Amino acid sequence: MNLKYIKGGVCAASGFRASGIHVGVKTNNVDKKDLALIVADCACAAAAVYTKNVVKAAPLYVTKENLKNGRARAIIANSGNANACAPKGEENARKMCIAVSQELGICADDIVVASTGVIGQMLPVEVIENGTKQLVSKLSYDGSDDAALAIMTTDLTKKELAVEFEIEGKTVRIGAIAKGSGMIHPNMGTMLGFLTTDCAINPEMIQKALVAATNMSFNRVSVDGDSSTNDTLALLASGLSGNAEITQQNKAYEIFSEALNTICIELAKMVAADGEGATHLITCVVSGAGSEADAEGLSKSVISSSLVKAAMFGADANWGRVLCAMGYSGVEFDPNGVDVAFSSSAGRIVVCENGRGLLFDEELAKKILTEHEITIDIKINEGNASCTCWGCDLTYDYVRINGDYRS
Amino acid sequence: MNLKYIKGGVCAASGFRASGIHVGVKTNNVDKKDLALIVADCACAAAAVYTKNVVKAAPLYVTKENLKNGRARAIIANSGNANACAPKGEENARKMCIAVSQELGICADDIVVASTGVIGQMLPVEVIENGTKQLVSKLSYDGSDDAALAIMTTDLTKKELAVEFEIEGKTVRIGAIAKGSGMIHPNMGTMLGFLTTDCAINPEMIQKALVAATNMSFNRVSVDGDSSTNDTLALLASGLSGNAEITQQNKAYEIFSEALNTICIELAKMVAADGEGATHLITCVVSGAGSEADAEGLSKSVISSSLVKAAMFGADANWGRVLCAMGYSGVEFDPNGVDVAFSSSAGRIVVCENGRGLLFDEELAKKILTEHEITIDIKINEGNASCTCWGCDLTYDYVRINGDYRS
Repeated sequence: MNLKYIKGGVCAASGFRASGIHVGVKTNNVDKKDLALIVADCACAAAAVYTKNVVKAAPLYVTKENLKNGRARAIIANSGNANACAPKGEENARKMCIAVSQELGICADDIVVASTGVIGQMLPVEVIENGTKQLVSKLSYDGSDDAALAIMTTDLTKKELAVEFEIEGKTVRIGAIAKGSGMIHPNMGTMLGFLTTDCAINPEMIQKALVAATNMSFNRVSVDGDSSTNDTLALLASGLSGNAEITQQNKAYEIFSEALNTICIELAKMVAADGEGATHLITCVVSGAGSEADAEGLSKSVISSSLVKAAMFGADANWGRVLCAMGYSGVEFDPNGVDVAFSSSAGRIVVCENGRGLLFDEELAKKILTEHEITIDIKINEGNASCTCWGCDLTYDYVRINGDYRS
Repeated sequence: MNLKYIKGGVCAASGFRASGIHVGVKTNNVDKKDLALIVADCACAAAAVYTKNVVKAAPLYVTKENLKNGRARAIIANSGNANACAPKGEENARKMCIAVSQELGICADDIVVASTGVIGQMLPVEVIENGTKQLVSKLSYDGSDDAALAIMTTDLTKKELAVEFEIEGKTVRIGAIAKGSGMIHPNMGTMLGFLTTDCAINPEMIQKALVAATNMSFNRVSVDGDSSTNDTLALLASGLSGNAEITQQNKAYEIFSEALNTICIELAKMVAADGEGATHLITCVVSGAGSEADAEGLSKSVISSSLVKAAMFGADANWGRVLCAMGYSGVEFDPNGVDVAFSSSAGRIVVCENGRGLLFDEELAKKILTEHEITIDIKINEGNASCTCWGCDLTYDYVRINGDYRS
């Protein structure tokens, strides 16, 4: 299929406006936006996936309830406060929906609500309610940037993407914004990701496509092994592109899914690359596994290992830690059948063959590992399945950022 | 029971000599000992537990083979090289046994062999073979210190303990040395731990007691979530204390086990406190759980969380991360029934009740969390089971140490 990256982020698809402003949830900096809104021009088919953490933030319960009918019109999200383990959590999440619904004249239960930030403090819902009028007044078909900025916490980079492709001769677009930097070991979604599309697709198929895309993207990145309480990934489909509504797993569904997978994978990589304190994006490819699940288990264990991550920070080709992390992954494999190579734009170097270390050029290895994007390439000898996961290095800055995040 | 801490470490029990010297496995510093030997005056009942990592170091296979008959006379261990994923691994581990056996005039398969250090480099076995004569000549009933020093890698503190107690009127002693600082998330033993006792106990019961003690000590500490390839915990029993040999789970077994549990727990805490870069020993007590396994799952998840560990480094009472880590532990519980308190010698402060944050004195919290030993006290509302696990904080020094461990 032909897929084109385009501008516009979450407003790239027909029928979506967005805005983002500072209302005061983030008290320490008035320049930092903290409230985002995405609104569809018409009713949308909608789907969402959530964290599997037993401790879930209040907005997740409200969103789940609101999406029961598979329909939504808008997404409201604040940063600076997670509304998790906080007094009046669900009440305040509902108040956010009500404020938006009143201002827009839509139903309060047609709204996706999400929060991200510090856990355990009461959400200052009044400042959100007071800011909603301005938030709505700023809605624009060019508003993706502002919305993307307004959901950031410790993120250093804005995460925004859009793609364009064709289904049955009709131009279809999928756009997205996301945030996520720490507490990233998604077992569902990144911390927050919002996608929009003008594809015509029913709620059942959109949920199916979203779950599949999540499993091969956000569920394959890790920053610090901590699955957040707030992970939410939501997708709204306006249907304005004019394709025949997708109601089964046909050719059109496959095309839509492929595009959705691509955008989710790229967003997930952006999240990993912007991991708290990160200086490297680490890609770990495991091939030759007995099953995809085995390959994923091995790859995830490697990108999650503190020791591997610290070695990558130091540009140290300490492949023993890679084997060690594979060994405690819970996946069975023959250690004597493992090959490991490191690669980047500076070259490729094989450091382990058949489970034994090779003499290698340490200088070249250092050069390869000094690049921003590094690949750990692992081959085992169990079958033909493979999987790619993404992570980042463990740095002084990760410790600094998280040593006193609340202040 | 009465239990007295005594001096002498691994030589405190009757019938054990030890030594530790520098032979050159650690090439960068001749002042650092790198070869340890513990020898019993008579044949011992012996037991060991090993890492569950699929990638196991070569000496583990040799030790397992040698302990098949439940008997051993000596323990040889080097630091500086893990002899894992290295060419000629088992051959070299056996060469270590042979060198010792020839020098001592004992059987090569009556020897426990262990290694710790960098993974993937060939063991320089000749320097070990060449040093064995001197190692044996230095054997002494006061040699525990030297042996404890010789198994250290990034450890900052020597780990050595001994206890004395009575079984049926006879004085019994258990002594130990251990090492472990990084790659600590034992799923079996710390990296290396060697225990000796003069208790008379048969191989079957000694293995049973060792497994039980490991489960409530070394399997409940974590430094960085990485289970090593080399974890080995071995116990030799000389039988010289004169008690009637323990051959079943009688009163004497219970006494012996209690003493063994105590010494293993104290050693495990020493390992956690000396975690790479650590500035705090963190104890996490979970009570009110439905089962001990649930309590352990929750407690282990909390002490393993990078975000909790970084918060403790920053003396930040960020209890939301504690709840978050509990939530992704895989254990089911009601988040609305969780109480969390932080305590230390500076005081105790409740920060969360029934899953909701309390307003608390941030200054007092900071004071409590600035102490070296910190306890995270968690109560849930599911039953009567409890469990304690131990860990350490995540610091700049952890990143520094592991950013370039090999050089």
